[in-house]
Amino acid sequence: MAMRRVDLRSDTVTKPTETMRAAMASAEVDDDVLGYDPTAARLEMEMARIMGKEAAVFVPSGTMANLICVLTHCQIRGSEVILGDYSHIHIYENGGISTIGGVHPRTVENNEDGTMDIDLIEAAIRDPAFEICYPTTRLICLENSHAHSGGRCLSVEYTDKVGKLAKKHGLKLHIDGARIFNASVALGVPVHRLVQAADSVTACLSKGLGAPVGTVIAGSRNFIAKAKILRKTLGGGMRQVGILCAAAIVALEENVSKLEGDHQKAKILAEGLNKIEGLKVDMASVETNIVYFDILQGSNISETHLCKVLEAHGVLTLPEGPFKLRLVIHHQISESDVHYTLSCIQKAVTGFVDENHGN
Amino acid sequence: MAMRRVDLRSDTVTKPTETMRAAMASAEVDDDVLGYDPTAARLEMEMARIMGKEAAVFVPSGTMANLICVLTHCQIRGSEVILGDYSHIHIYENGGISTIGGVHPRTVENNEDGTMDIDLIEAAIRDPAFEICYPTTRLICLENSHAHSGGRCLSVEYTDKVGKLAKKHGLKLHIDGARIFNASVALGVPVHRLVQAADSVTACLSKGLGAPVGTVIAGSRNFIAKAKILRKTLGGGMRQVGILCAAAIVALEENVSKLEGDHQKAKILAEGLNKIEGLKVDMASVETNIVYFDILQGSNISETHLCKVLEAHGVLTLPEGPFKLRLVIHHQISESDVHYTLSCIQKAVTGFVDENHGN
Amino acid sequence: MAMRRVDLRSDTVTKPTETMRAAMASAEVDDDVLGYDPTAARLEMEMARIMGKEAAVFVPSGTMANLICVLTHCQIRGSEVILGDYSHIHIYENGGISTIGGVHPRTVENNEDGTMDIDLIEAAIRDPAFEICYPTTRLICLENSHAHSGGRCLSVEYTDKVGKLAKKHGLKLHIDGARIFNASVALGVPVHRLVQAADSVTACLSKGLGAPVGTVIAGSRNFIAKAKILRKTLGGGMRQVGILCAAAIVALEENVSKLEGDHQKAKILAEGLNKIEGLKVDMASVETNIVYFDILQGSNISETHLCKVLEAHGVLTLPEGPFKLRLVIHHQISESDVHYTLSCIQKAVTGFVDENHGN
Amino acid sequence: MAMRRVDLRSDTVTKPTETMRAAMASAEVDDDVLGYDPTAARLEMEMARIMGKEAAVFVPSGTMANLICVLTHCQIRGSEVILGDYSHIHIYENGGISTIGGVHPRTVENNEDGTMDIDLIEAAIRDPAFEICYPTTRLICLENSHAHSGGRCLSVEYTDKVGKLAKKHGLKLHIDGARIFNASVALGVPVHRLVQAADSVTACLSKGLGAPVGTVIAGSRNFIAKAKILRKTLGGGMRQVGILCAAAIVALEENVSKLEGDHQKAKILAEGLNKIEGLKVDMASVETNIVYFDILQGSNISETHLCKVLEAHGVLTLPEGPFKLRLVIHHQISESDVHYTLSCIQKAVTGFVDENHGN
Repeated sequence: MAMRRVDLRSDTVTKPTETMRAAMASAEVDDDVLGYDPTAARLEMEMARIMGKEAAVFVPSGTMANLICVLTHCQIRGSEVILGDYSHIHIYENGGISTIGGVHPRTVENNEDGTMDIDLIEAAIRDPAFEICYPTTRLICLENSHAHSGGRCLSVEYTDKVGKLAKKHGLKLHIDGARIFNASVALGVPVHRLVQAADSVTACLSKGLGAPVGTVIAGSRNFIAKAKILRKTLGGGMRQVGILCAAAIVALEENVSKLEGDHQKAKILAEGLNKIEGLKVDMASVETNIVYFDILQGSNISETHLCKVLEAHGVLTLPEGPFKLRLVIHHQISESDVHYTLSCIQKAVTGFVDENHGN
Repeated sequence: MAMRRVDLRSDTVTKPTETMRAAMASAEVDDDVLGYDPTAARLEMEMARIMGKEAAVFVPSGTMANLICVLTHCQIRGSEVILGDYSHIHIYENGGISTIGGVHPRTVENNEDGTMDIDLIEAAIRDPAFEICYPTTRLICLENSHAHSGGRCLSVEYTDKVGKLAKKHGLKLHIDGARIFNASVALGVPVHRLVQAADSVTACLSKGLGAPVGTVIAGSRNFIAKAKILRKTLGGGMRQVGILCAAAIVALEENVSKLEGDHQKAKILAEGLNKIEGLKVDMASVETNIVYFDILQGSNISETHLCKVLEAHGVLTLPEGPFKLRLVIHHQISESDVHYTLSCIQKAVTGFVDENHGN
Repeated sequence: MAMRRVDLRSDTVTKPTETMRAAMASAEVDDDVLGYDPTAARLEMEMARIMGKEAAVFVPSGTMANLICVLTHCQIRGSEVILGDYSHIHIYENGGISTIGGVHPRTVENNEDGTMDIDLIEAAIRDPAFEICYPTTRLICLENSHAHSGGRCLSVEYTDKVGKLAKKHGLKLHIDGARIFNASVALGVPVHRLVQAADSVTACLSKGLGAPVGTVIAGSRNFIAKAKILRKTLGGGMRQVGILCAAAIVALEENVSKLEGDHQKAKILAEGLNKIEGLKVDMASVETNIVYFDILQGSNISETHLCKVLEAHGVLTLPEGPFKLRLVIHHQISESDVHYTLSCIQKAVTGFVDENHGN
Repeated sequence: MAMRRVDLRSDTVTKPTETMRAAMASAEVDDDVLGYDPTAARLEMEMARIMGKEAAVFVPSGTMANLICVLTHCQIRGSEVILGDYSHIHIYENGGISTIGGVHPRTVENNEDGTMDIDLIEAAIRDPAFEICYPTTRLICLENSHAHSGGRCLSVEYTDKVGKLAKKHGLKLHIDGARIFNASVALGVPVHRLVQAADSVTACLSKGLGAPVGTVIAGSRNFIAKAKILRKTLGGGMRQVGILCAAAIVALEENVSKLEGDHQKAKILAEGLNKIEGLKVDMASVETNIVYFDILQGSNISETHLCKVLEAHGVLTLPEGPFKLRLVIHHQISESDVHYTLSCIQKAVTGFVDENHGN
């Protein structure tokens, strides 16, 4: 009998469902680079509606989506973007906005809840009077939900305030909405309202929504026209991409409603972890589907070793720096998987303590 | 009854076959960005074998494949690449190697057969003694088959000579093999032999081979490792990409053998066009699946108008500058489609002449 | 009679002395782009000696010097540099390392004394194990003295520690030594010792040293050879540049010894400011020739207005954000100028208070 | 007694005259980065007048001048520039417009007289209808006089035609006028008329005009404002630059009138070379101060060896590829130097023939 496998490394690891596979097998497709794929068009129209923007475009990944958005807002050489010092764009996307796009990043401290203080953002905006030695601020980026803070959500009020600030200074606002559906569900606010202040927004279909591949960018018609050119330049234009879009449409139809359950399972997991001696979860941080837990320093448990022991039980996790692990819930993790995981962790931790006692 | 449709704009317009759809519906997949998708791994291994290289990697498009290869060979700021003045990279890929990659192109005239004179290539290599004002030549690019010349093939002998030249000067050789399988079939030379001299080679699976999406890069293990990082930077890393790779594996299994038929249909089309008064095809240029035909200038036929008349009959073509049209054959164009196309063109041309006589 | 003029905006405003003018008028020169200017060679050799490096090269400005150094250490696409969030390179150089060089900056908080905590630097170094989504850290930059902190000096001990850290991780260390001579004099440590741990260092000759134009980069022979190529690319290669180098040689001979006096005058100025009601200088911050003073918030004095009133008395200053002004001492500011400045400020401040009382 | 030295490598090798040295020694200067240097302002105003443009800015070199102009016209990512395949920008400036600026070059063949065929330029302009895969043409560059063709001049008529073409397509026109004063004198047309059609123009003061350092860019007020920001980014902003500008003002006052004599001396030199057996100058190509001569292939003279023999006689020259040498006249080459040079070449060539006969 095959070992039970509980993959908690990320919500990107979901497998396409049977409905998705059927949709892909029967999708109507054409050459999307020439602009004729009907399924891509259908997905893009639907996503534009959901995001409340004029138009949308499908791209292979969240990284490309953010890269295209930042570069499209910062078309002019000498641009600077303000973004969180622990934003995904700044930390996990190879620095592409600079190394590929020549955009200069100016970071502002991310608070524990994923926000940046609004007065710090404003202070980071360059005074155009000193353009002789300053780059030109052109864009502010938010991330909702904010991955590095454990999937915490930015409220409508906060987002609107940043949008107002951007407008006041003639800047654009981009929202990296890789997990915007999680934020929408957790906050009980429709996606379009949550991103109303944004000039561009991305949403991943291959994370919590479970589609095999893809992210969508939404914005004004003019913005999306420019984004399509850059998508071609980067090599993200794909031919009969309707195959992938068909699965993404199913993801929208069937999986948005599963996110609330994911968040509940995350809370159960977090509460369970808090009951294990030597571990600690900040419950306030568990707003959506991501659970970070700390290993208390006196406990003599190494995060690398813990990962390995769990892997031996089929539970896959991601170490996140010293004394910290990340667990991500998605629709293919059942409540039973959560309890199995907790029992494995309990055993592993007890093992450490025992080994320690033995010394 | 729906109108007959013969799409000759490109071999990128093929629809996935039933076998491909079945393969996609049942593909075993995992997160390929984390490196675990078994179907992607299978395709990449097979392609590495076919190309005779150590390793391979799947990317969303031929444009990304070329961009990654040029940038990986030219990692160091200040690099120059030598390539044909009518190469696909120089003309049709948004200038991405410069605008995204900061690589300086130095073009050499493409001959009618898609080659560049070897002594002109050598003359274009920068003398390192003048590095104070010269960029550093790091790469030569060939394209086989060469699209802009009508799909003509570079021989093994020619390719080997360029490879030898590259080696002599410490340069790398990249082959844009978007249609390398067509060249292989037309020349009767296995792909791996045809690209033996190359340090990197790309091959599109979504052109003549009919897969819905994708291109593969092959090269040394070290090169492919670097290529994967750049793929991530550009946003070409895709999650459960095995879906697309499953179709590509079918394309390799089932469609390579159809290319010879495509080339024969292209010849039939070309011969038919040559019999139509006012049109002219250089038969020597029809080596693979692309047919360019010229409209003789006395004939009073406008290429734009001709396109439109054909479109009204369901025959889709691409105008290629004044007095020139491009027709591309692929496995979903039957010999009957070719004859239908010829009769439509004959009618359209006669119409022009008649209209003209009427004046 | 012309009004007295005391230009405290920067130490870049010095005028060339008579000796410098004489040296320029009689300088032996040749084409330096071809590598033949003897005076440039003499200056570069002398600067290499002073900095304790193998070689040196003259460039038009500190901005170009830093740009060349960062780009030369980060020749490979995908590089990241660690630098202070209030370093001159990050704040005042147009973001050129990204917008021109495609290098991704990762900032670490600058402490009040211009240092960055060594453990924060180490934490910012990217783990090569995650190169798939991380840029590659290649360089750490320090700035000595540190302009934004008021010209505070980094000690030999601190610099050596950062150098050791860089070495441990295979990184390079660059020191922006725009005012390295000020630091050297203030610390009583020879320049070469102060920059011993650095792979490259810049030193401005047109700031405290009073030369009309120019900065010198020092490093290994190999590094300087690469730097010269990049200087040419950026357009910093100049023909009979010996003219400027002749003045710079005089600056080295005559003006290094004046820096100690500049620092004393800065202290006198700072102490005087501290005696004026409503103003505040952190005396610990006045280590070299820069004096920042704060306007206490209850005092109803606007920094913009203060600047204007002072300008009306011939005293030129630079506002540095709300309630903050910057004064910079150089060898053409006498102790009498300092006292004149203090009396003007006293009068201006009293004026404000009076106006206020009147209301 | 020191050997006679005749430096014919370039007109960049001139030494500043006594008047220039005196002007530098007494120049009124201030901080030009802050915008206060009166001598820089005077030079820039005078150059704007001569070039017939609204404004001008002084930069350290012709390379920086061209780089700034191309990048300022091509501020938006994805730009393409049309320029000659043997233009100085394309061949001798390190490919900086791509490697530093990310601009994609599209070359058009340079004719023997330095022109590009106007219909070839027009054919190279990208059709905006295909912006999905084409970069956007934004600029055409001319070079007058054209260095690689031997200093040949572009006529007003030709330049105006290119300007008209640019306007028709909404493009900008830049003229690399490194030696625009030579062209003006040779054609008998004032500089401002010669560059009337251009949106930007550069003119070197350190070539035929003999100033030690510097080039000036002229254009609209708005263009020059942007150029100044980019000059700062690249590090071309210099502090008391009035020193260099003072010499440049003298160059304008005293040396423009010497150019006609330079051209005459070049013709004398060319005619003399044509009389030497085994050498050949195309007299039509000697329009200004540059003389290329070919070594006839039967003559068994190696250009490298010839250079060395001449150097032994104090005559410095530049080999320009196989069987080709370049000689450049400037105001510090007398007619007597020309005759001395000819006699040295005659002797050297005879020597070769003699050596040959001996075999």
